[in-house]
Amino acid sequence: MSKKNYYIGVDLGGSYTKIGLVNRFGKIIAKTVLTTNRYKRNQLIDEIVFSVKSFCLKKKIKTKDISGIGVGLPGLIDSRKGIVRYLVNIPGWKNVHMKRLLESKLKIKTFLDNDENVMTLGELHYGAGKNVKNLVCITLGTGVGGGIVINGKLYRGTDLVAGEIGHIPISESGPKCNCGGTGCIESYIGNRYLRKKLKRDLKKQKSLVKNLIKKSNYRLSLKLVDKAAKMGDRFAIEFWKDVGIKLGIMLTGVINFINPERIIIGGGVANAGKFLFGPLGMTINKRAMKIQRKSVKIVKARLGEDAGVIGAAVLAKERDIV
Amino acid sequence: MSKKNYYIGVDLGGSYTKIGLVNRFGKIIAKTVLTTNRYKRNQLIDEIVFSVKSFCLKKKIKTKDISGIGVGLPGLIDSRKGIVRYLVNIPGWKNVHMKRLLESKLKIKTFLDNDENVMTLGELHYGAGKNVKNLVCITLGTGVGGGIVINGKLYRGTDLVAGEIGHIPISESGPKCNCGGTGCIESYIGNRYLRKKLKRDLKKQKSLVKNLIKKSNYRLSLKLVDKAAKMGDRFAIEFWKDVGIKLGIMLTGVINFINPERIIIGGGVANAGKFLFGPLGMTINKRAMKIQRKSVKIVKARLGEDAGVIGAAVLAKERDIV
Repeated sequence: MSKKNYYIGVDLGGSYTKIGLVNRFGKIIAKTVLTTNRYKRNQLIDEIVFSVKSFCLKKKIKTKDISGIGVGLPGLIDSRKGIVRYLVNIPGWKNVHMKRLLESKLKIKTFLDNDENVMTLGELHYGAGKNVKNLVCITLGTGVGGGIVINGKLYRGTDLVAGEIGHIPISESGPKCNCGGTGCIESYIGNRYLRKKLKRDLKKQKSLVKNLIKKSNYRLSLKLVDKAAKMGDRFAIEFWKDVGIKLGIMLTGVINFINPERIIIGGGVANAGKFLFGPLGMTINKRAMKIQRKSVKIVKARLGEDAGVIGAAVLAKERDIV
Repeated sequence: MSKKNYYIGVDLGGSYTKIGLVNRFGKIIAKTVLTTNRYKRNQLIDEIVFSVKSFCLKKKIKTKDISGIGVGLPGLIDSRKGIVRYLVNIPGWKNVHMKRLLESKLKIKTFLDNDENVMTLGELHYGAGKNVKNLVCITLGTGVGGGIVINGKLYRGTDLVAGEIGHIPISESGPKCNCGGTGCIESYIGNRYLRKKLKRDLKKQKSLVKNLIKKSNYRLSLKLVDKAAKMGDRFAIEFWKDVGIKLGIMLTGVINFINPERIIIGGGVANAGKFLFGPLGMTINKRAMKIQRKSVKIVKARLGEDAGVIGAAVLAKERDIV
C-alpha cells in the first residue's frame, strides 16, 4: 500500500490558525496552533509551510507522502481557483492566490474553501453526519453560517456561496442585518445580537446571570447564561428558549423546503444544550410538515474544536470542487 | 435510428387530465383532454390506456415505439415505487399502484411523480430553465409549490417530498397555514388566501375591481385584479405589490441559502406580470445578499398549459428517480 495517506488540514480563523497532520482515517496525528494576528499574511503562510515540514521530520514521512493540503478560511473564497477574495476580521487578505503560493512552496496539491463548508465536510465524513446523504450543517457563532450536503456531496451553489443559512429571514420587518437584509435569523441569534439583547433584558429583569457577571469582573458572556440556566435561573432558560424558537422557525422552512435527513448544529451557542435544543425541537414539531419533520434528526456537531482541521483534510482528500 | 422515440406524458389534475404523445424534442404531437371528475379511478386509467392506443393508430406507430409513460399527479407520490399515496381534491386514490396498473395494461415502462416535480422537469428541459444547473421552480396557485434542481438534476429529498417552498415561514406569528404551520408564505399568497384578502380589502377601499366583479355577475376572481391593475387601478396595483413583496421575502431566504442561478415562477398568479415581478425584484434587490442576487434571474415559466404533459414526458425519458 502506498504511503501517500496523509493530509494537511489548516483551519485559519480570526483568533487561531490550527495546522494538523491528518491520517486517512481522519485522525489528527500532529498539530500546531498559532495566534493568527501575530503574523502578517505572508509570514502566516510561511508558518504553515514550516509546520508541514516539521510534521514530516517529527513523523518521519516525506512531503510527497502528503496527498493534499486543505485550508478553511472565514470569508469569501473562490474554491475553484484557490483564491481568497477577502476574509472577515483578518486584514491583508484581498485576492490572495493562496493555492498557488502553498503549491509552489510545498509541491503538494492545495484546496481552499470557506470555514462553513469545511466544517460541513468534517461532520459529513467523521462526525455527526456520517453516512447521511442530505444534511444541513449550521454554526451558531458571531455569524450564523452553514453548509449543505445533497446526495452525499457538498453543494456549493452557482457562485460558490450557497449555505448562507443565517440570512434566511424569519420576519417581514424585524431588525436590520449586517448583510444588508432585514429580519434575517442572524440578526436575532448571532452572538453580537444576543449579547446586546442580554444587556438590554438584564436591565429590566432579575436573574442569576447578573451575579455571575459580577463574579467574573463584569465580563458579559453567553456562557454565563448557560451556567445560570443549569442552575435553574428562569431568565436564562427563557433567554435560550427564545433563541430555540427563532432558530426553529427558520429551520422549519429549511426542513419543508429541502427535506433533509439531518441537521447538525455547532458553534458556541449550541453549548446551551437542552435549553436550546428542547424549544428548538418543540418548535419544529409544531410547525414543520409531518413527513419532513418525522425523518429529520437535529443533532449537535461532534468534532468540536478540531472540526476545522479535520474538515480541511477531507477537502484535500475529496478534491471534488465543482 | 430506432423508432423508439416517443413518450406519453399524463398530467392528471383536479380539473382536467391531459394525455399527450410527445416526441423526443419535447413536442406534443397528439393530445387528449378529459374532465377528471367524470371518471372513477379505474375508468380514468382505462381512458389513459385507450388514449395511448388511439395515438398509436392515428400516428401509425406501435406501442413498443413508445419508450415510456410519465404521469404527474397533485398529491403525495412514492416515485420510487410508482405508488400514488393520496391526491389532493381527487377522491379514491389512496395507495394506488398506478405504475403497475399501466405497465400491465400497456407493457410500457411507467414513472410517476408529483405535479410540481414534473413541471420543474418540463421547464428544465424545454422551458425557462434550459441549460441551467441550479434552479427553483415555483407554482403560484391554490397551493404554493415548487421543485428544486441541483447540479442539473431534480432533487427529491430524503422522503421524496422536497420542494415545499410554500411552507417556508416568513413570519414568527402570522396566519395559521393549511399544513399545520404558522406564517408560511402560502398562508399569505395562496389563491384561497388571496381571494379572502381581496374580499376583505374591497370592503374598505375604492377600486375598479368592484365594478369588474359586478360586470362578471359578482364572480370574484383574481384575474379581475390583473385587469384592473392594467387599467391603472391603485388598489389592484397595491394588491399585487403586497404579494410581490411577501414572495420576495421568502425568495430572499431561498436565494441566500442555495444560491440558485434561476427562479422560475408559474401558476395563475404569475399572470399579474410586471405588477407582481416588479415589486418582487425590488424586494430581492433590497434584501438578498449581493453575490447571490446578482447572478439569480427571476423569470416566468414558459411552458404554460402544456408544462404538465411535457414534464411528464421528460420524467419518462430521464428515468433517474433516486
